[in-house]
Order: sequence, then C-alpha cells, then structure tokens
Amino acid sequence: MNVQSYFSKNIIDALKNNPPGEWMTDIPNGCIRLNSGYPAPELIPVHQFKESVVRLLEKEQDLPFHYLGSPGMENLKQSIQKRLSERGITVLEEELLITSGACQAIDLIARILVDDETVIAIEAPTYMEALEVFQNYTKRFISIPVDEQGMQTHVLEEVLAERESRGKPLPCLLYTIPTFQNPTGTTMKEDRRQHLLDLAEKYNFLILEDDAYGELNFRKCPPPLKAMDREGRVLYVGSLSKVVAPGLRIGWIAGLPDFITALAWFKKDLDHPFAQASMATFLESIDFEKWLNYIRSTYQLKSSILISAMKQHLPKSVTWYEPEGGYFVWVKITGINTSELLIHALSEGVSFVPGKYFFLDHNNGTAFLRLSFSYANKNEIVEGIQKLGKAVKLVLNNS
Amino acid sequence: MNVQSYFSKNIIDALKNNPPGEWMTDIPNGCIRLNSGYPAPELIPVHQFKESVVRLLEKEQDLPFHYLGSPGMENLKQSIQKRLSERGITVLEEELLITSGACQAIDLIARILVDDETVIAIEAPTYMEALEVFQNYTKRFISIPVDEQGMQTHVLEEVLAERESRGKPLPCLLYTIPTFQNPTGTTMKEDRRQHLLDLAEKYNFLILEDDAYGELNFRKCPPPLKAMDREGRVLYVGSLSKVVAPGLRIGWIAGLPDFITALAWFKKDLDHPFAQASMATFLESIDFEKWLNYIRSTYQLKSSILISAMKQHLPKSVTWYEPEGGYFVWVKITGINTSELLIHALSEGVSFVPGKYFFLDHNNGTAFLRLSFSYANKNEIVEGIQKLGKAVKLVLNNS
Repeated sequence: MNVQSYFSKNIIDALKNNPPGEWMTDIPNGCIRLNSGYPAPELIPVHQFKESVVRLLEKEQDLPFHYLGSPGMENLKQSIQKRLSERGITVLEEELLITSGACQAIDLIARILVDDETVIAIEAPTYMEALEVFQNYTKRFISIPVDEQGMQTHVLEEVLAERESRGKPLPCLLYTIPTFQNPTGTTMKEDRRQHLLDLAEKYNFLILEDDAYGELNFRKCPPPLKAMDREGRVLYVGSLSKVVAPGLRIGWIAGLPDFITALAWFKKDLDHPFAQASMATFLESIDFEKWLNYIRSTYQLKSSILISAMKQHLPKSVTWYEPEGGYFVWVKITGINTSELLIHALSEGVSFVPGKYFFLDHNNGTAFLRLSFSYANKNEIVEGIQKLGKAVKLVLNNS
Repeated sequence: MNVQSYFSKNIIDALKNNPPGEWMTDIPNGCIRLNSGYPAPELIPVHQFKESVVRLLEKEQDLPFHYLGSPGMENLKQSIQKRLSERGITVLEEELLITSGACQAIDLIARILVDDETVIAIEAPTYMEALEVFQNYTKRFISIPVDEQGMQTHVLEEVLAERESRGKPLPCLLYTIPTFQNPTGTTMKEDRRQHLLDLAEKYNFLILEDDAYGELNFRKCPPPLKAMDREGRVLYVGSLSKVVAPGLRIGWIAGLPDFITALAWFKKDLDHPFAQASMATFLESIDFEKWLNYIRSTYQLKSSILISAMKQHLPKSVTWYEPEGGYFVWVKITGINTSELLIHALSEGVSFVPGKYFFLDHNNGTAFLRLSFSYANKNEIVEGIQKLGKAVKLVLNNS
C-alpha cells in the first residue's frame, strides 16, 4: 500500500519541505552530553514531587483521574498567573491556556495563524524545534540576525520597509526568544524590545514570545515583551520544563481571550488532570522564589565552570557570547565545519549541537555550535571541554 | 484589536463551520449525571496508582522527569503491544504511537489525511468529539446509519456505488466505532466488518477504527477490524481512559510504519514521560485480565440496573438498544424533542446528552438521547431514571 498517496495535500507539501527524521546523530552511551537542553538531574525535585503526588491523591482521591473536576488542576492556573504577575504580566483566567509544553504551544499558535501564504519572521539562529513546527505550515520566512544584544531590530525595520516599498508580503507573525535565547544565550536589550513592539504596531504583526528560559537569569534582566505589550500583540509562551521538569509537559500561552478560545478549540489532547494537579500540588509545597534562586545559582556556577574550561582548553580563535542566564553558550569556530567536528568530538566522548540546525539555511550555521551547561555535572563539563578542545585542535591541524 | 483578522484562512473557515462553544448546558451541582462518559469513580485504582508512582520514582529517580530516557515509558509500549495481541492485533514497535488520549489520536489522523476537499464517511449517530474534530478540517461528510448490528454497510455500499457512477468524490477515510459504539452502544456484526473491509479495498479508502470501549464486553464479541485487516487500511485508535482512567491521557494509534512516522511528526506535545511511566508501572502491578473481568462485571451490573429501572419507570413508547458492553444506552422517545426534555430533566435533577449532538444534521437526533451507566452509582442510576420518567411524562402530557 502506498501510504503517502493517502496524505492530504498540505501534509504532502509539509513532509516534502520538512522531512521527519533524526536531526541529530545518535549519541553513544558514555558520551558527555553538552548537547542536551535538559535540566540538571540534581535539580529535579524527585522526593518533593513524590510527596506531592501522595498528598494530592490522599486529598482528591479519584478526582485527578477524570477528564475534569480536580481542584488541584484549577490551582495550576492560579499558580501560573501569580508567577506571571511577578514578571510584570497581568493575565485573566480567560487569557491563559495550559499546554503540554512550549513546543505544543508554538504548534497551536502556528495552527491558528499560519498557512502556506503566511510570512513568518524568525531570529537567525533560532530554536530548531520551533523552526520545524513553522515549516510544517509555511515555506515563507524572513530571518533576522541575533547579536549579543538580541534580535537586531534595526535590520528587521530595514527589511520591513524594503518589503513594503516593493509591495512584497509582510510577516503576520514574528517568533522571538528575547531572554537567554536558544541557541545564542543572549538577551534582547530593553530599547530593542520597545523598538520591536513599535514595529509590530506599525507593520501590524503579532509577536510570539517564547520565554522558556526567562526566569533563569544570573543577574537583573529586562521585562518580558508581554509586560510591555499595550495592544495584545504578544502571544506569550512559558513553560515549567526548564525550571521544574520537562517530563510533566506543562507549558502555557498567555494572550487575548479570543486567541485563547481558538487555541483551546484546536488543542485536542485536552487537559492532563493528573500531571497538572500533581504539578500544582508540588508548586504549593515550595517557596518558588527561593527555589528559583537555588536553581539560578546552580546554573550560574555551571555556566562559569564551562566558560573557565573553554578559556583554558579551546584555541584562542574560538569565540562565544558569555551567557547571562538560561542553559546555553553559542560558540563560533572560524574555519571549521561543526558537523564534521561533531564526528571527532563524539569519538573523543563529548557531544554538542552543530550550528546548522538553528538556521533555516543550514549553510549559515557551519562555523557555530551550541553547548549546554545544564545537564552535565561539573566534572563532566570540564572533561567535556577538554575533549572538545582535542577534537577542535585535531580538525584545525588537519585542515 | 480584531483578533479574527490574524487567523489563517483554514482556521477562519473551520471556526465559521464549527464554532467553539459549550456543546452542553451546564449541569447543576447535585444533578445525577447520566450524561457523563466518565469511568466509575469506584473503579479508579487510586491507591494502586499512588503506590505505582512511589515505586517508579524510587526506582527511576529523575528519569521520568526528563524529555526521554525513562525505562518505564518504554515499557508502556510493550504493555500495549501485549494487550493488542490479546485482541488478535499484532503490531511492531514502529507501528504504534502513544497519544494523549483517543481524541488527540483522531485529531492527528485527521491532520495528516483530511483537507477541505476530503470526503469522510461517518456513522450516524457518532461520537460528537470526533465529529467536532473532523469539522475542523472538512465540510464534506457521508453519514451512514447505525442499527443494532452496527453500521449498515449495505447502505454504505449503495452510497459508494451511486457516487462512483455519478463521478462524485469518494471518501478517503471512514470513521467507525464498531464495538459498543458511542452513542448507540451497539456492535458491528462480523459479516458487516468483513463487508466494510471489502468495501475499503474496492473503493480504496482508509478506516479509522475507534476501539475505546472494545475491552468492556459483557459477553463474547467480534474481533476488532484491525485484527481482520490484511492490507493495512485500518488506523486503530485505543485508549486507557475507559478501562483505567482518562486523567492520565493515554491512548494510541496502531497503523503502518509510514503512517506512524508522519503522525509522530505532527504530534507536538511530545511524549509525557511522567504520566506514561506511571501508567506502565501501574499496569505491571496488576493482572490486567483479572482487572478487566472485575470492571466488566461492575459495568454489566450497572447496565442491568439501568435497563431494569428504564423498564419500570419509562413509558412503554420509549425504546432502546440493550447494550452488550461499553458505557452507554441509546434511547428513542418518539414525539419528544430531547433538547426540551433536558430542561425538565435538569430541574428534576438528572442529566443526559440530547441526541442532536451525535448527528452532523442536529435535526436527525431530536427523538434520541444518550444515557450513561458508567459514572453514577447504583442508587443514583435508579433515582435518575425515576426522575427522567417524571420529566418524560410531563413533556408527553404537555404536547
């Protein structure tokens, strides 16, 4: 049976444009994982979470096992509203949708806003999974470069003005990770944030703000775009994956009520009462600000260990942005193809993500790679960078 | 801001065709819920599940909290494969996708197969949520009537032959709940199952088999379509919502590997390691056949209590199909509009689902209603039917 012959026309296009497959080489067992955007295993609150589940089920009995009706599940929304308000974002209950992680949130937003005629503006580089999601809906992208101050909004302005003057279609949606961006780790400065919001108003586009890392700041950082959004142009995506655990699959979208109604209508995995009520019970059991301070200081320490090791073990020609938060360091190695480097790094016993995956045009990422300091432990970080240093020197000497 | 002006063209159509909203009147507190397709609260294995979570976390520690890597999560697939094989369905690992419940499974299948030109054949009546999902993708439906032997495949054959002879588009997909159908509770007999598969081959359509209730049989019942499927035309959807608990959101799709690859590509909520590994651990802790026998006998008893009460308290003109399994009884009351009846029933203190919601053309459902014996307890079932009897007599006397 020819399975493809049954696919709908949109899907045939999407699969042709953006074929499914392993985006990363399999990582051998025992390899030090500087590729993973996973939280630190030592920061997963296993014991507290177990106690929370026990407490929840003793209190609510069968309620979190039905489709609806768990009080704990309702508490999750309030808990998220409270956290958002601490970031300067005030949302009503009808302006908030719980999703199964940020990736589903991005897919739902694309589902309601994007079709094959839609132009999307993205950062270059950007989060590879979001890129994959968007490519399931459209082929039309505008890539705006990111530097150590975040998205270069003056480039965006030039591109928009040029497209308008030539009568070319303008973007309907701009996707940004303004704070501790994935993969660059950089943060959009406040004047650029205001500039971006002004451009959204002038050129009438919506902004998808992905703030998955926003609470993992090592020092003071600018407010989220959503906190500066007067018109409701920002659809804000948050997640508990990076600050608690991804395995619960809890994220959210904050936006105008009419957006939330439509998004909820297309979210067919429904609510996840057991996971959501368990998470709510866990959140009630901790002092969240204290928790955040604890994990921030852990990641800051790991980040500084990674940077020190890089200074010590990598050739002088290797450069990077020093992270101010989040999970990642973005590294540039001129004269190297990082996909080839990965082969050598894996045989040394360390992994990273080659830069190409973060660009629509893979060629733009050849000289870059993303390191993560979140998952590996402190010793592994140092050892991993030593191994990476060896691989880099080997490839540079061979070229 | 005019939110609608930002929606993509497909979504504007879908929302116009199939507006989101409360499909059911709010049910007052204290009302006996003969509407709910929820499992019996007394059958939710709260205690065993709590113990399973504790055991899982003591064994796997942080592993079920990451995106990937929990051995328990892997066990879930094997556990489902084993159960499927007991129903005569042999699937390889690459032929199985875990979904967040059956509703997401149906949505994913529609996502890859259905666009606005696709014709879908459905049962009349059918599961209202599936109808909602399909209407998000297309307006083109063929409704095939269901009787006490399931879908009337001879009607389907006539419709297909007639459409072919007139050059009208044929369906690409047929959606059926062959076993303990929602809402009718009836089961497609084995000769009709073979007839349906023969028609699928002859007219080259795929079958979406929704088997959410298939294991809740009160006596021997025919094999699933998937067990009789030689060509791979059947996409089989199963769920643990009705036999364990919906709040975990665990369902699955079994189909040819190329379908599964594409479906997985569009499933952007990813895996749910904590919920899946918890469920796997629970399933390992019980004798599933024994568990099934226990819940089957409970539902059979509740079903017989409902039927006895109906015989006693409803007027002779009220008719129904006697269920052989599942959760539901489909009731016909000639001369009554069941949406009006619901208002009186709710003020008596009992709820049901008016028949209109299960038909594409709501007018076809005016004389019908769906009762569920799964959620209410035995006393409530009897009391609920007494109240329903009062409401029916009141409306019949007024008309």
